[in-house]
Amino acid sequence: MVAPHPFDTVRESEVRLASKLVKDSHPASANVHFVQIDKLDPPKNDMKKYLEIERTGGKLPSIPRVLYAYYYTEETVFNKALVNVTVGHVITKTQLPKGVCGPLLPDDLNEWEVYCNNHPAVLAEIEKLKLPAGYSVRNDPWIYATDDINEKRPLCQFFMYVAAGNGHSESNHYSLPLKFSPVFECFTKKFIRMDYLPGGFDATLVPTQPWQEVRCVEYHPDLNGEDTTARDVKPLLITQPEGPSFTVDGSKVKWQGWEFRIATTAREGFAVYNVSFKGRQVFYRISLSEMTVPYGDPRAPYHRKQAFDLGDCGFGTNGNHLALGCDCLGVIKYMDGVGIHANGEPYVIPNTVCMHEQDNGLLYKHVNYRTGNSVLARKREFVVQTIATVANYEYIINLKFVTDGSIDIETRATGILSTMPIDENVRVPWGTIVGPNVMAAYHQHILSFRIDPSIDGHKNTVVYDDALKMPKDELNPFGIGFVSDRHYVEKAGHVDQSPFTNRTYKIINENVINPISKTPVGYKVEVPPRQMILADKDSFNVKRAKFATEAVWVTKYRDHELFAAGEFTNQSKSDTGLGVWANGVDDVRNEDLVLWATLGFTHIPRVEDFPVMPVETHNIHLQPVNFFDRNPALDLPQSNNAFNKSSLFESNKTSSSSGCCKTNL
Amino acid sequence: MVAPHPFDTVRESEVRLASKLVKDSHPASANVHFVQIDKLDPPKNDMKKYLEIERTGGKLPSIPRVLYAYYYTEETVFNKALVNVTVGHVITKTQLPKGVCGPLLPDDLNEWEVYCNNHPAVLAEIEKLKLPAGYSVRNDPWIYATDDINEKRPLCQFFMYVAAGNGHSESNHYSLPLKFSPVFECFTKKFIRMDYLPGGFDATLVPTQPWQEVRCVEYHPDLNGEDTTARDVKPLLITQPEGPSFTVDGSKVKWQGWEFRIATTAREGFAVYNVSFKGRQVFYRISLSEMTVPYGDPRAPYHRKQAFDLGDCGFGTNGNHLALGCDCLGVIKYMDGVGIHANGEPYVIPNTVCMHEQDNGLLYKHVNYRTGNSVLARKREFVVQTIATVANYEYIINLKFVTDGSIDIETRATGILSTMPIDENVRVPWGTIVGPNVMAAYHQHILSFRIDPSIDGHKNTVVYDDALKMPKDELNPFGIGFVSDRHYVEKAGHVDQSPFTNRTYKIINENVINPISKTPVGYKVEVPPRQMILADKDSFNVKRAKFATEAVWVTKYRDHELFAAGEFTNQSKSDTGLGVWANGVDDVRNEDLVLWATLGFTHIPRVEDFPVMPVETHNIHLQPVNFFDRNPALDLPQSNNAFNKSSLFESNKTSSSSGCCKTNL
Repeated sequence: MVAPHPFDTVRESEVRLASKLVKDSHPASANVHFVQIDKLDPPKNDMKKYLEIERTGGKLPSIPRVLYAYYYTEETVFNKALVNVTVGHVITKTQLPKGVCGPLLPDDLNEWEVYCNNHPAVLAEIEKLKLPAGYSVRNDPWIYATDDINEKRPLCQFFMYVAAGNGHSESNHYSLPLKFSPVFECFTKKFIRMDYLPGGFDATLVPTQPWQEVRCVEYHPDLNGEDTTARDVKPLLITQPEGPSFTVDGSKVKWQGWEFRIATTAREGFAVYNVSFKGRQVFYRISLSEMTVPYGDPRAPYHRKQAFDLGDCGFGTNGNHLALGCDCLGVIKYMDGVGIHANGEPYVIPNTVCMHEQDNGLLYKHVNYRTGNSVLARKREFVVQTIATVANYEYIINLKFVTDGSIDIETRATGILSTMPIDENVRVPWGTIVGPNVMAAYHQHILSFRIDPSIDGHKNTVVYDDALKMPKDELNPFGIGFVSDRHYVEKAGHVDQSPFTNRTYKIINENVINPISKTPVGYKVEVPPRQMILADKDSFNVKRAKFATEAVWVTKYRDHELFAAGEFTNQSKSDTGLGVWANGVDDVRNEDLVLWATLGFTHIPRVEDFPVMPVETHNIHLQPVNFFDRNPALDLPQSNNAFNKSSLFESNKTSSSSGCCKTNL
Repeated sequence: MVAPHPFDTVRESEVRLASKLVKDSHPASANVHFVQIDKLDPPKNDMKKYLEIERTGGKLPSIPRVLYAYYYTEETVFNKALVNVTVGHVITKTQLPKGVCGPLLPDDLNEWEVYCNNHPAVLAEIEKLKLPAGYSVRNDPWIYATDDINEKRPLCQFFMYVAAGNGHSESNHYSLPLKFSPVFECFTKKFIRMDYLPGGFDATLVPTQPWQEVRCVEYHPDLNGEDTTARDVKPLLITQPEGPSFTVDGSKVKWQGWEFRIATTAREGFAVYNVSFKGRQVFYRISLSEMTVPYGDPRAPYHRKQAFDLGDCGFGTNGNHLALGCDCLGVIKYMDGVGIHANGEPYVIPNTVCMHEQDNGLLYKHVNYRTGNSVLARKREFVVQTIATVANYEYIINLKFVTDGSIDIETRATGILSTMPIDENVRVPWGTIVGPNVMAAYHQHILSFRIDPSIDGHKNTVVYDDALKMPKDELNPFGIGFVSDRHYVEKAGHVDQSPFTNRTYKIINENVINPISKTPVGYKVEVPPRQMILADKDSFNVKRAKFATEAVWVTKYRDHELFAAGEFTNQSKSDTGLGVWANGVDDVRNEDLVLWATLGFTHIPRVEDFPVMPVETHNIHLQPVNFFDRNPALDLPQSNNAFNKSSLFESNKTSSSSGCCKTNL
């Protein structure tokens, strides 16, 4: 088997070796319990040389593959090791301070879920429900989050639900939330306490009562009572009889002038590396960096509902097994992820990333009205998709490469709302009633995308341009003039949002001037203006996720600074990421820098979002700005029906529509 | 032939009758010269009754078809007539005040273009260019716009260009703009004056000099020198072997629970009427209402560059002839438009609207992590598309109906930038150099979409909701709580933008309460927060287009109030639309109201936007909010590969990917 490329996904053999070396470095009595093992990114300075030789030819230097391992010893002692799996030795082993917790492992969650449901304290509460036959109790283990600076135990909160559907495995328990919620210590499985959930308009709690029968809002076709034939949906087939336009060689993908490498990762889902278009470097690395989901219901224990879907549980670890004709249409290339068991044994997460081409309407068109002749090209996109299920909720991340040199970073939120019990005839100002006696609290989804640019090289600058009206003077007598006003980001920090001056963020290379515009080459980063985190600036929600307070951040590049809220988010008390790195001190102009784009959306649930939510879609757009000397898509073949083979709707068969656009080609 | 439905597109026979009746009502000496004839919308009160009978059955009342005709008499006298073509008489004839101008007619523009190029004053300037062989001169007649309250003549400005390409009809003259620009009076063809265009960094003008040879940036495949085989684009076919899922009966379209009527119109391109989803009324009428494109170069004569692409020339009148496999992929239904000649004779604009289905990724998904079973449905859309070419520029309007009850109103801007000459080594703060000696001034595209709702009936209310943090108190001790704060629009006017409070605009029906949420049913109107018109508030640009100053407007419904900047925009001195109707007086709460959404984007041209511009896409989203009692797309069939017939990328053929998602169906 050929040696892996430095950017390749971690291999099972590498995980196996790393976990063995780590276990061997501890006495058996330590009971090494792994929670995450993955590859560390290679040092950028080494990779710059490597990639240059790769480009120009010559003997490639050997860059050791280094893995990190997060694991517990003595049940609650959290450790991190770095392992060189190329030569096979443990580089460092660190015992982390008490109170620092690692990400949760799916195996553990499944085990704890069963344990919780059978714990005497929980059984006692279930007893009080006096559930009728055909009903059972389920629980979702939930991130405990933070409300006490002194809490140092790794804890887990369990939200309890009734499962109806006469034992049908897919019955929607999220429709039937219960009012008690036990807290356990992880690993030791110590019962900490029983929390109770309010059902009224305030924080008042009541002891567990016999369960009142209420209709369960089901999503599964077996149970939802819908007639799926009523819509008469006809197939719409997407085929590529001559095969796709892309090639994949290991981690290397080539499509329509785009070239990049891709790796799946435990924490991010996937990352793309060394992205170039038409032979020019544009981005060194693009990935989802972190996501926080704070809830707006102020009542205990809901005030602790703040998930970090990457840091707390691993977006890749929770990646879906994508399936042909379901998650992806067309000719599909799949990539696998790698997960681990607590003993350090790896397993394959099949098809966690899918890649395919799609048509997205027109890319450009012009008709010469004098002759009626037109030029037009279709907008073809190459989509890299991953989907993660984090308990109740699904996130779809699509990285779309476009034939005009732009990249669209798309997030789709779907799945099932996190629900709370609510009493009959009660309404609350922080949530929507989405079903009988079930409430979905207002919350925010705040994602951070890490964009590590290499616009014609690694020395880049972030600028922002405002469109400003000109003063009314002799040059502008009619008061209609406006200009673009440029500002340079000199120090690591953030840029304020300013939609009403049309503020546009750009990454430019001041060392490369566009021969046409006579201005530095660059890429625009279109981040939609959004409400940022609503929580009080002194709240734990904000202290733990500084990235959620601003839309655009710039930091100086440093190896291993990948995660916007810091390396360890589970029960974190403070942000060790952007809050630290955006220090106002580092020079970032004409430097190797990183731009962090925060994509926030405040989610006020609709009844239509239940029992399963139609996608809410949000995009960040990367677009060349005065990077090329003209439209880089002029070389696309003209669109015509000999190529696209579309057909007429019956009643049109006799119409005047020609099979091709008028052109003089 | 069956009688037309009141919402049907105007018929050629109706146009012919109307123009005859108008001509007969004037002496032959009047030289009636038509510029626009189309159908007037039927009175809404009549249509409410009509549609109710249509729904419940019974004898349909006859609603007369009324056409409007805009025409000139005695060359420069502008008139408007209303004609009842059902009974066949002229209802009213009005001579409009001097200074009010009608829209420009394509026939006229073509005639004037030739006339201009052969006028002695123009030939004299061309002479001075001493053009080498193989070069000729072209011109684009341009909207004269406004800078003088006393100017009452219908004028036209001609922008002049050099055509290279050795006489190739598709050579891009926009790459070679000239520095003189004659102004003529329309119809009389009187030469008014010769304007000269600045080429430096200020308003300084120079007499016409011999033309300096400069490279023409070509877009046409014959001329642009691109290798269109380099990308190796493989076909991507979209087929519906069992036919499409929609039906079309006259103007009536049915698809996936959606029902509406559609008509093409001379001014708007098309409008949809009486839109319902799953049997419930949602919108009475949706259309593009107006668009203004003000430019930011303050120098004469550019200060007058402010186009109204609907009112000045007719978006439908300038509609493209869409072609199978070019503008639209899949199984396509086309609709024709109707244009007129100056003599009132109609002609067909073939295929000016296309309708088809498309796949847009996942609509919803959830995986039960306990069982690995998933439910998922694809997002199928029904697209109604039209494309207009307004001289150099193209606009694509897509109305997308989605299977979850939402509607996406998409605008794509493409075509060729309006260019100005610029001297070597000169830069200006209000424009981008996009080619050798050619500059594209910064400009804005500000569209108004008219949304006439009927959310479960015609008495609706516009509200806006802000997400606000709760005070830190005993109910919110951790400072993480937030609530939604509702405001009601009581009087005709506008709503301020407020993205940082997550301001969301909704049209609700206060008379219909959602049984689940216990709140009024409604639809959200997602208008992206944008910079509005930059021109000074006292400028003609703003006086003529009040709609461009605010993002969301609400007015009380009145028949024939369709166009945001008023009925006549060509050389208008002031806005007679929203500026008048949004009067702060009319009650609009729980009334028959209209919401006007302004979609603005400030366009700072990129070199990549030349010679033809990759689409810039902007969307307004209409989405049910607590309108249904659950996700209305639960009845969609589950997505699987037996249905979608996708295939694996070669290297995946042996992979673990199954042909279907895991489900227990």
